[in-house]
Amino acid sequence: MGPNQRQDRREDILARMIALLEQAAAEGAQLVVFPELAFTTFFPRWLLDEDELETYFEAEMPNPMVQPLFDRARELSVGFYVGYAERTPEGQHFNSAITVGPDGTILGKYRKVHLPGSVEPREGETYQQLEKRYFEYGEDGFPAFEGVEAWGKPRMGMLICNDRRWPEAWRAYALQGVELMVMGYNSAAYDPNGGTTESEALRTYHSQLVAQANAYMNATWAVAVAKAGVEDGAGLIGGSCIVDPNGVTVAEAKGLGDEVIVADCDLDATLQGKTKMFNFAAHRRPQHYRRIVDQTGSL
Amino acid sequence: MGPNQRQDRREDILARMIALLEQAAAEGAQLVVFPELAFTTFFPRWLLDEDELETYFEAEMPNPMVQPLFDRARELSVGFYVGYAERTPEGQHFNSAITVGPDGTILGKYRKVHLPGSVEPREGETYQQLEKRYFEYGEDGFPAFEGVEAWGKPRMGMLICNDRRWPEAWRAYALQGVELMVMGYNSAAYDPNGGTTESEALRTYHSQLVAQANAYMNATWAVAVAKAGVEDGAGLIGGSCIVDPNGVTVAEAKGLGDEVIVADCDLDATLQGKTKMFNFAAHRRPQHYRRIVDQTGSL
Repeated sequence: MGPNQRQDRREDILARMIALLEQAAAEGAQLVVFPELAFTTFFPRWLLDEDELETYFEAEMPNPMVQPLFDRARELSVGFYVGYAERTPEGQHFNSAITVGPDGTILGKYRKVHLPGSVEPREGETYQQLEKRYFEYGEDGFPAFEGVEAWGKPRMGMLICNDRRWPEAWRAYALQGVELMVMGYNSAAYDPNGGTTESEALRTYHSQLVAQANAYMNATWAVAVAKAGVEDGAGLIGGSCIVDPNGVTVAEAKGLGDEVIVADCDLDATLQGKTKMFNFAAHRRPQHYRRIVDQTGSL
Repeated sequence: MGPNQRQDRREDILARMIALLEQAAAEGAQLVVFPELAFTTFFPRWLLDEDELETYFEAEMPNPMVQPLFDRARELSVGFYVGYAERTPEGQHFNSAITVGPDGTILGKYRKVHLPGSVEPREGETYQQLEKRYFEYGEDGFPAFEGVEAWGKPRMGMLICNDRRWPEAWRAYALQGVELMVMGYNSAAYDPNGGTTESEALRTYHSQLVAQANAYMNATWAVAVAKAGVEDGAGLIGGSCIVDPNGVTVAEAKGLGDEVIVADCDLDATLQGKTKMFNFAAHRRPQHYRRIVDQTGSL
């Protein structure tokens, strides 16, 4: 997806998403992956007053505002992953994603575990990264789920943005046998406040590198989808990619605007890795991995 | 390193290693990384009788056979990592590596945790992978250690071959603050028994991909060194590489023979990752990683 500006009307964004869904369906897609926080701008870049902040959250999913996407997907018998800001009836806030089946059933739900950014705004900076302020940490871990018959009943897992850089998250899913990982992201293309530490090309490389390597090391397909381009004056990388269980990118977005890429994901391609190199039961040595759960920070 | 044939004399192999050490020192290297099982052929490809098998093991390190390498390194004030087959006084066998300081002191020792292959030979096949038969699993985990003053006192970790494909191994070191990971490998370039599942190019890609991604995700330098070429009639991939903490390869071997690649590894380049994206204390969520230690195989 290209960018969503802060002043964009929700119905216009939804219309673009429906157009993308239709294009994907016309190209044979059975499952469409949208980005993180797909319905809105990436609002954690702003220090917002409570009233505006709440406008970015969905109190139910689906709800009247997003229903046309659900309806069109069902008509086309296409499922989808979409990321959104979730407000629970109890008033909790999460950075969430769902995967919806071709009949409109919600097959799985995920709440982002690895929130980047800070609670307090960085002083003197125009652009913030306030995910730790606006969202609570997902506390349901990494629950794998099963896709539908029409997709070949893949064992699936969801991640959101920063999660994809954490090998623990992928492994927690791989230990549940995942064959298809889907994830959306909004990742800065550069420091919008003027820092120059990492180029856009390097950031895009990082994004694709972690999708490729974690797909390979976990013998799974991976679909990683950007919201890209200049949003609210801040650049987001593109680099959406579909990666096979060898870690090889089989389809890749060319630009930073709305664009559809499609690939046929043969689930049997996961077997080579799962039965040989990454036959976990035969080769893992968990007694030596204790630090991973016994420590948070580095010594 | 190029291949060591089964019939090669140990002193000839050692002479090649000393020549490589001297060339590296002449190019300014302070630390030289040799491959896994550098002093011999990759003997786990053969089902061997006990007498021949024991000839591949070192009962002490150093010992008279390898002493000339230690002596020359000390003269040149160059340290080195080297992989070898270890037999303990108690008769245990390990696939081991050591890192030796410029004064000849052994700074760290590592016993391979992730042994690939099988205990029993695969029937009807000429070439085997019998690491699980010939070696015991290393049970000391992943102990980081400190490099010398002349190297900038890097926090270091060692891996051996197959270990580098396991993100848990890298993370166990990263949680000890490693800035420089060194590892040697002998990785098949193709199935020597005639299978065609993975091309040499794909296997080399895998090898470099895991070095790049794990260097990035752990904000560390990584040096991964092949024994390459056709050894005993079985092909080994090359692709030795030096990777920076951005996961970018800064030096890469061109061929499959004896060859020196050199890079200047600025340890401060690890700080960007360690203090921001991969600030573990700020961002890790170990309560959701339990499966990594509670399960061995996949559900």
